[in-house]
This record gives sequence, structure tokens and C-alpha cells, in this order.
Amino acid sequence: MQDRIHHINFIVRDLDAAVPAWERILGMPVTARDHLQARGVNIARFQLGHAWLALVQPVRDGTVPARYLAEHGEGFFLLAIGVEDLAAEVERLGDAAFVGAERAGADDWQVRDLDPAQLFGAQVQLAADDKPG
Amino acid sequence: MQDRIHHINFIVRDLDAAVPAWERILGMPVTARDHLQARGVNIARFQLGHAWLALVQPVRDGTVPARYLAEHGEGFFLLAIGVEDLAAEVERLGDAAFVGAERAGADDWQVRDLDPAQLFGAQVQLAADDKPG
Repeated sequence: MQDRIHHINFIVRDLDAAVPAWERILGMPVTARDHLQARGVNIARFQLGHAWLALVQPVRDGTVPARYLAEHGEGFFLLAIGVEDLAAEVERLGDAAFVGAERAGADDWQVRDLDPAQLFGAQVQLAADDKPG
Repeated sequence: MQDRIHHINFIVRDLDAAVPAWERILGMPVTARDHLQARGVNIARFQLGHAWLALVQPVRDGTVPARYLAEHGEGFFLLAIGVEDLAAEVERLGDAAFVGAERAGADDWQVRDLDPAQLFGAQVQLAADDKPG
């Protein structure tokens, strides 16, 4: 059962340019910054209620985010829907609903990407906070 | 001060095809349906925590959503950030931050679209629930 928006990612070429613009729009300073080595991205996140708005800058060629930026330009990258138990959702939906394997997101998140072709072009992933208890 | 994700819209060609796929992924039935005459769209909405995930099908040519679908295909359309007082935010950010005028969204929402060119390609609007009190 998915019951919330966990985070939404926008891809940008340059965090140093994008962050001040977003800080002005949101009226708040950026909440956290991360570097995801495995994805080759730098991230700046804003906490919006129970969800995160993340700006994602590819910093290494040949990664999924870098290819997406090259093909589509800046803008929306993906929506993550928060789930309590990622393994249970994968079991419920079946492996064929997903592309790729489970992987680590920012912070302590575990994520798995749904197949956009089965969701009418929507790029969506399921995300669980990997917190004990 | 924006403090939450209000809704996220995905544009689809055919709600009758897209809704069952999303109901399966989300593990819930669609929450509400709307027709927005002024925008020329039919909408199916899912409530996810405090936010909405909306599927938007253009049903009239020449509208903004219909042009977007024709140019970009199905997928992400816009993110709406919830604000308490839309007029106060417009005052704070200045008219030049926006494109177009304030307009009515689904339900009792009032929305105004930010200029994507100032947000590094991100299509974002501010939204307020026009509830009394």
C-alpha cells in the first residue's frame, strides 16, 4: 500500500545556479546535500512537509541521470512513492513491473524503479526509508 | 512559505487505459474524477497522504495540456506546491516569476504557474485550497 509522495526529482545541469532560484521560490534554504557515488550525481534537497523536492546534477558521464539530461534536458526526472515495505510491494506487483534492481537512494532510502512503459510514460519509483523498527 | 507538495500531474492520452494501471501500482481505487471545462481536461485523482496524484487527459484541441501532450507525449506534466495564501506568495515573488494569470484548478484549488525558464525547466505551479476560514 503506497500512501504518500516520498520525493520528486528534477534534473539540473548546475546545482550552484539552480539552488538559489529554488530557495527563492520555496522561501527556504536547502535542507540537505548528498553525493550518490553509484548514480554519479550531486543532490540538493528541500523538505516539503513529509516529502522531499530534490535537484539532481549528474557529475559523471554514462550514468542513467547523465543520459536522461543529455536526451531530455533539464526538468522533471522522477517521482518516488513512499512505501512501508519495499519487498512486499515488489512481491505484490511482480518483478515484471520494474526495471533494474533495488538500489540505494539518497540518505537511507531504498528504491526500485517501475517500468515507465507500463505507466503511460510516467517515471515513478517506489521508495522505502531503510530505518530500523 | 511553501511547505508541501499539493499535487503532481501526469498527462495521459486515455484515462480508461491509464487508471487501471495506476490503481494496481498504488493498490487503491481512484479517489475522485473531475472535468475542468476551462482547461479542456478530464482528471482522475488519487489521494496520497496529504497530496494528490492526478492523471490528466486532454479532451479538447488547442489547450495548454493538449499542446503539451502533442509535443512531449505522455508523462510528467506539472508539480503543484501548496501555499496557504496564493496572493501573498505572488506578492513575495513578483509577477515576473509567473506565466499567465491565476486560474481555477480541480476541486476548489486556485493555481498560478511559475515560469519554467526561471526554474531550470521544471514545470511548477503554486496552489492554494480556496477554503473559507
